[in-house]
Amino acid sequence: MKFIVDQQVEDIEMPENLKLNTFLKEFHSDCTHQECNFGFYGFAFGQSPFPVPKSMQEALKQNADKGTYAPVPGISELRETISSYNKYYFGIDVDPKRIYVGPGTKELLYNLLEILHGTVILPSPSWLGYLPQIRFLKKNFHLLPTRPNKKISAYDLEKLSLRLSDRQKILILNNPNNPTGLIYDESELEEITKVCRDQNITVLSDEIYAQTTYDFNKFVSMAKIYPEGTFVTNGLSKSHSAGGYRLGYVIFPQHALNVKSQFKKILATEYTAVSTPIQYAAIAGFEINKEMDEYFEITRRIHQIMGEYTYNTLNKIEGIETTKPQATYYLLADFNYFKSEFCKSGITTSQKLAEALIQHPYHTAIIAGDGLVLERTDFSARLAYVDYDGSKAYEYYQMNPPKSTSEREEFVRINAPRLIAGLEKLELFFDNIGRNADSNSQIKLDSVIVSR
Amino acid sequence: MKFIVDQQVEDIEMPENLKLNTFLKEFHSDCTHQECNFGFYGFAFGQSPFPVPKSMQEALKQNADKGTYAPVPGISELRETISSYNKYYFGIDVDPKRIYVGPGTKELLYNLLEILHGTVILPSPSWLGYLPQIRFLKKNFHLLPTRPNKKISAYDLEKLSLRLSDRQKILILNNPNNPTGLIYDESELEEITKVCRDQNITVLSDEIYAQTTYDFNKFVSMAKIYPEGTFVTNGLSKSHSAGGYRLGYVIFPQHALNVKSQFKKILATEYTAVSTPIQYAAIAGFEINKEMDEYFEITRRIHQIMGEYTYNTLNKIEGIETTKPQATYYLLADFNYFKSEFCKSGITTSQKLAEALIQHPYHTAIIAGDGLVLERTDFSARLAYVDYDGSKAYEYYQMNPPKSTSEREEFVRINAPRLIAGLEKLELFFDNIGRNADSNSQIKLDSVIVSR
Repeated sequence: MKFIVDQQVEDIEMPENLKLNTFLKEFHSDCTHQECNFGFYGFAFGQSPFPVPKSMQEALKQNADKGTYAPVPGISELRETISSYNKYYFGIDVDPKRIYVGPGTKELLYNLLEILHGTVILPSPSWLGYLPQIRFLKKNFHLLPTRPNKKISAYDLEKLSLRLSDRQKILILNNPNNPTGLIYDESELEEITKVCRDQNITVLSDEIYAQTTYDFNKFVSMAKIYPEGTFVTNGLSKSHSAGGYRLGYVIFPQHALNVKSQFKKILATEYTAVSTPIQYAAIAGFEINKEMDEYFEITRRIHQIMGEYTYNTLNKIEGIETTKPQATYYLLADFNYFKSEFCKSGITTSQKLAEALIQHPYHTAIIAGDGLVLERTDFSARLAYVDYDGSKAYEYYQMNPPKSTSEREEFVRINAPRLIAGLEKLELFFDNIGRNADSNSQIKLDSVIVSR
Repeated sequence: MKFIVDQQVEDIEMPENLKLNTFLKEFHSDCTHQECNFGFYGFAFGQSPFPVPKSMQEALKQNADKGTYAPVPGISELRETISSYNKYYFGIDVDPKRIYVGPGTKELLYNLLEILHGTVILPSPSWLGYLPQIRFLKKNFHLLPTRPNKKISAYDLEKLSLRLSDRQKILILNNPNNPTGLIYDESELEEITKVCRDQNITVLSDEIYAQTTYDFNKFVSMAKIYPEGTFVTNGLSKSHSAGGYRLGYVIFPQHALNVKSQFKKILATEYTAVSTPIQYAAIAGFEINKEMDEYFEITRRIHQIMGEYTYNTLNKIEGIETTKPQATYYLLADFNYFKSEFCKSGITTSQKLAEALIQHPYHTAIIAGDGLVLERTDFSARLAYVDYDGSKAYEYYQMNPPKSTSEREEFVRINAPRLIAGLEKLELFFDNIGRNADSNSQIKLDSVIVSR
């Protein structure tokens, strides 16, 4: 029997994480070099490597018997806890009724895009998850390229917005930012807000990395600056290393009563509610106490150490420029300096660069430009620095918090040998690319060129 | 700030379960009679009242530390376990690769309707969840009314299908059936399949109640009869009393490779995967062992006892006809005999009947006709018989399994006093309706008429 699939489904691309997964599996099984059987150096997948906080695990165990459906917006106690959490950490005062819980921030964003009419303004580069959603929902969208500082500017936003005729415009702001690891500071958010107010732009502020901001006081939620026009999303996946739990939340703008009731209808139509035991676990995760506070502090310190090491190592390679991460566990590396050398080696797109890097002897997995909503020939890549044993690193940090530069380097050496080895492979690659170009020969690089 | 919500969202109705919830809350707080402070007799909400099986709770506890994302289609071990479960209980031999796990059957059905092109054929009456999904997705649909036996007929299906010009037609078959509690037997499924083969109709067979079939040998999965054209959905919500866990699965038809890969894309775009600890809990739930087998057996026996009591009690009231449930925890009651009496009392739609029943002194909650995709003036209603303490009933059954009719009645008396009391209220209502009509006066019923 032949089934007919809706054309809009056929048309969207495989989300990058799936594509990558398939890609890595293929290459892993393809490599004939025995010493490579461990796989690859993982700069591609961005997943917090730490254990789920003990109190959450405990709460999940305590509530394993909760088999009944939760209310659609989430259980009251959880919504209240999230409200207090937001007040304490982000200084935003939100009525729990303005908070809805969903099975992950991804799905909540999808649901918001489903119900909000209008054109989407998507910064470029951006997280690889937004675009397939926008495409599948057949929404109009416009890319808003970032400036050389890798942030969008209020001026560009205004210019773009003036060109758009739609009654409602939706800006997706990801702050702190995946893939750059940068944060928008208060004055930048204020400038953006001024344009949004003038142009009647709704903001979906994806703040899933808020809690990972290294200098935590510097994080400012868009809900503080633009409370009447901002939907904030956040959740357990990054700050609580519990992406697998699948729980996120959205904070509705002030006075968005109509949207809220429509949203409830959609959640009830599509998925009823988030897993009840998981909701109870989340209460423990959003509670304000010393244990969670220490957890956030230690994990953000470790991300910072790994980020600094990655940043410093890459920037020592001539020609490579990267963002200097202020949050998250990513940075964006710009390899465009090597464009002509890439071309000489048959690497004509950023995807081919990713394919070359995964080959023997480099075996290094990155997310290349077109997976980040960049031009195919923009040789930029996202590098995640989480390829280490998070439990061990966490324990080590608790026992020996590194205080000096050399102690931090030692911390990386002891806890993240694969990170170091992967960066060495990258150095080797760029060394070879450079030499190869110098000798004007393609021979040495032939092995890295992927013919498919 | 004013937000613009997509028109298609505004247009769909609040799913009935939400509407009912709001409705009950309003009426509960409205009642001024002090003795009513306990609420209402719950024939409306259909939720399995038993505790989540111990082995599932235990597995959830054991896997509380699983914070990483699961693969999109579900973890392999779970898909393998579901495959064995289906072979053992339903006699269908399915490669685990044909099984995808999702956060509830509801969302999987939504996803299937998202990707499958074509016109939907929806039997009437049907479960209250399908229609808002179909409407929100702007799919064409046609209702297929059931015959007097409350089942669809192959003949009617063929007649309807011949009128439809769409290249693909999708029949939603809910077997065992909510709201009727009936099952389609093998020969009926074969007749339906013959039409489906001739007319190229795809079947979404929602078999979420399969395991509750009282005479379990009588249940036949559509996947057995029509393997090349049937998507089967099932999950933990009904058979495992774990609706709150949120886990369902879909079995793809044989050779539906294209649909499967498109489906994976959609899941990755919308929600990544089901909560990982919940997936591990589900493995325990789908494992074949004595404990789970006893659980299924006892729970279906209790549903049967409660169903028989409800059926017998209602059918003693002159004029009421109900289906005789063979599975689930619902029956469909036909009150159309009282149509003229209802009219005389101002009850002009089935929704008004539900409102009248929730009023003092009846306080009985049912799901009325239009919540079941029936005409507004069809005075039919779904009654769920689950308003009792499932843990106590389960334990009691383990200790004293009733063997005779009188023991079964005693079982109901001891374990489900609210069920009995609610049915008495229904009797009182119909008694009053009848007397009221006889005396040709509206006075006695004035209190039950809802003006809103």
